[in-house]
Amino acid sequence: MAVPLRLSSYVDAHRGRIVDTLLDWLRIPSISADPAHAGDVRHSASFTADLLRDAGFEHVRELTAGGAPSVYGDWLRAGADAPTVVVYGHHDVQPIDPLDEWESPPFEPVIRDGECLGRGAIDDKGQVLYEIEAARGLLQVDGRLPVNLKLLVEGEEESGSPTFERILVDQRDLLACDAVVVSDTGMWAADVPSICTGMRGLAGFDLRLRTAAVDLHSGSFGGAVPNAAHLAARLVDSLHDDRGRVTVPGFYDDVRPLTDEERASFDSLPFDERSWRATAGVPFLTGEAGRTTLERVWSRPTCEVVGLSSGYAGAGIKTIVPATADVKVTFRLVADQEPEKVALAFERWVADQVPSGVEVTVVREGAVAPALTPTAHPAVGALGRVIERVWGRPPLFTREGGSGPEEALGRVLHAPVLYLGVGLPGDRIHAPNERVVMDQFWKGLLAAGELWPELATVERWPR
Amino acid sequence: MAVPLRLSSYVDAHRGRIVDTLLDWLRIPSISADPAHAGDVRHSASFTADLLRDAGFEHVRELTAGGAPSVYGDWLRAGADAPTVVVYGHHDVQPIDPLDEWESPPFEPVIRDGECLGRGAIDDKGQVLYEIEAARGLLQVDGRLPVNLKLLVEGEEESGSPTFERILVDQRDLLACDAVVVSDTGMWAADVPSICTGMRGLAGFDLRLRTAAVDLHSGSFGGAVPNAAHLAARLVDSLHDDRGRVTVPGFYDDVRPLTDEERASFDSLPFDERSWRATAGVPFLTGEAGRTTLERVWSRPTCEVVGLSSGYAGAGIKTIVPATADVKVTFRLVADQEPEKVALAFERWVADQVPSGVEVTVVREGAVAPALTPTAHPAVGALGRVIERVWGRPPLFTREGGSGPEEALGRVLHAPVLYLGVGLPGDRIHAPNERVVMDQFWKGLLAAGELWPELATVERWPR
Repeated sequence: MAVPLRLSSYVDAHRGRIVDTLLDWLRIPSISADPAHAGDVRHSASFTADLLRDAGFEHVRELTAGGAPSVYGDWLRAGADAPTVVVYGHHDVQPIDPLDEWESPPFEPVIRDGECLGRGAIDDKGQVLYEIEAARGLLQVDGRLPVNLKLLVEGEEESGSPTFERILVDQRDLLACDAVVVSDTGMWAADVPSICTGMRGLAGFDLRLRTAAVDLHSGSFGGAVPNAAHLAARLVDSLHDDRGRVTVPGFYDDVRPLTDEERASFDSLPFDERSWRATAGVPFLTGEAGRTTLERVWSRPTCEVVGLSSGYAGAGIKTIVPATADVKVTFRLVADQEPEKVALAFERWVADQVPSGVEVTVVREGAVAPALTPTAHPAVGALGRVIERVWGRPPLFTREGGSGPEEALGRVLHAPVLYLGVGLPGDRIHAPNERVVMDQFWKGLLAAGELWPELATVERWPR
Repeated sequence: MAVPLRLSSYVDAHRGRIVDTLLDWLRIPSISADPAHAGDVRHSASFTADLLRDAGFEHVRELTAGGAPSVYGDWLRAGADAPTVVVYGHHDVQPIDPLDEWESPPFEPVIRDGECLGRGAIDDKGQVLYEIEAARGLLQVDGRLPVNLKLLVEGEEESGSPTFERILVDQRDLLACDAVVVSDTGMWAADVPSICTGMRGLAGFDLRLRTAAVDLHSGSFGGAVPNAAHLAARLVDSLHDDRGRVTVPGFYDDVRPLTDEERASFDSLPFDERSWRATAGVPFLTGEAGRTTLERVWSRPTCEVVGLSSGYAGAGIKTIVPATADVKVTFRLVADQEPEKVALAFERWVADQVPSGVEVTVVREGAVAPALTPTAHPAVGALGRVIERVWGRPPLFTREGGSGPEEALGRVLHAPVLYLGVGLPGDRIHAPNERVVMDQFWKGLLAAGELWPELATVERWPR
């Protein structure tokens, strides 16, 4: 790093304590999708609040709208002329199954070969912690922050943020700001820094089919009665056509096509399909016909069945005709699709597919609108300068295929959304052996320490 | 009952004790498909052996060939001129899930409204118990049995009888007989007695697909990588064509067509499709085009997926692309299909269906050949007379769609296989709330008490 960075000495002096804090936080199994872990999510919220207070944040409190608690804290002494920034992250984590594929227990984090392994390491406790520590560092080094900072750490991001928008609306005044900085994304590669400019939206569904009151004996009834597993399989197989396109009528109607400029930007990335495939660990790539891999994961809407269960799952076989089948379906959405419209279309499609008389229930499991950041915004330029300073190369523009409450943040708070994220493609988020690469973690901390002074120099804050 | 029955007084005098014995036996969770219950299966075997000894059987012992123990006992003092009969049943039971659909716990049996509810009540502890008690009764009343009786109570019928044929071959001399009486089937209805003349065979498979080393994040990878749940759904949906026929090449090649006489016999049954559908509790009937319901379940081979699991099965959703999928498939086979030939054809078909690079493993889970009894055999006539005497109506000829080791019994022991079974269509075998109707149970006991004297009058024993 050619330029001396504001928090380099702070990091050197506090490295051990910061790592210990990270490990302590990762030990809390704050799985928001599982009601059995509700107490752990609350424990994680109070842990977060303590971290904020300890770092020097004020007005620390939990915010809820009936769901798992988010945590808020701010430092507002930069003055009325300084910009105000909301930093967003989350303290809840994904479920951990399949448990037997973890090399070490998911909630007993370890540091190994320059990586920290554990559920939540990169998604998102690690990325929240470097933000908190950057603020603490600047307060220690300078006695102040150059911007008014509001930290908002959500508690239900991994379960689809069911009440998060309600919190944003309720707390619109508290959260008023000039920009939102999301600390929950990744970069192209450790040596190819990048800035995310968009995320896909999400619409999730839990669907149950029932063909009979109870499982039936496959000898007595098999071959003459409907089988819920067969019907579920047909439904799942019907979700895509032979060209890999989602068959729900109208699904693509509102999709905003890529501009020539965006397509050129995608094409300029050093994308190596072979190594991306190796990272995924899959034997081949597939998807919507006529689209590149980056288009498929960034700018095209998709549909994935994330869970399928019917009948007997124990050892050996059981001679039954299953009476029920559960199908968990998620759609990733892109600008300008609306989750509500997709949900209605999907529910109508399901009703059309399932034979008359078969019971179907569809439960909506979270909805997130897609988000796109205007890359010409001066704050995006400031972020780019900071990343170049820390990583030594100017960042490329990318998108993320994942979903988060970013769209709601930008829309409700009426502010541009920037993404400072240090995740890498091999971090195994949502999978066993999730990790954060510690060098990326420290760079994230240093970058946050550079970003606030840099944003303080931005004079125009277009909405 | 117009004719006085040999064991009527015995039943009246021993009713309470016999019910208590049934309840005690049903409390043993002898689930042979689940390795965790291996100890319970052994417990059930020793319970069975005690029952046999107590009833007056001799040479009581456990028989194994590496699997769960079968129990054997005999009474061979009827003389060299009397026929020798093997009575077959099993003391193991089906798994119990879905547990939450049981009205009372599966292994805490209760008597209610003339029914006994519990796992194994009709399949098959109840049907073994009335055979044991009939022998005990005759020995008490007459001091002897009119036939040489060998009771064989299997311990792994509900897990596909993996080693049962080995036992039969090993013990061929011990089990030598003129006829086999299977006590593990049902009748048309309580007021429409019937004799089963055939059972379907079975070939079971446990299949796993793997598309990636671990589940992948559906945001980062969804839409561009193979999804194991999607592939499993396609595989399952491909098992049948639009006419409900199994698509595995050659599957129907060896199927013996119904004779005109058999078809006429099927058509003579008082089959009410509406009430059969109501018993099944399904909204409609379906299956192979151009076949009646009875053909579909008795004389046509079928394919059922009995278990399907992929991805996340917990509460809410998890944003993954599942890396694995498990599919449990069973085929019901009819004369003259061979399980081995079907297994090879299925394994070849699976390999052809799955895209290159996707890992597939297929584990065979039990194979049972189909069985058909010659209805003209004099012993079948004797059984018919007994059933008419106990139920007050001459029995109709039916088949069972289920599978058991009946074919191996007949083939290895080179003897005709008769079916005395008192199960009813609403007994919920293999499902929650399995029951035995107690009036049928007592009639089964009385019928067994009539059958041995009646068989002793049979002079011709064609093989």
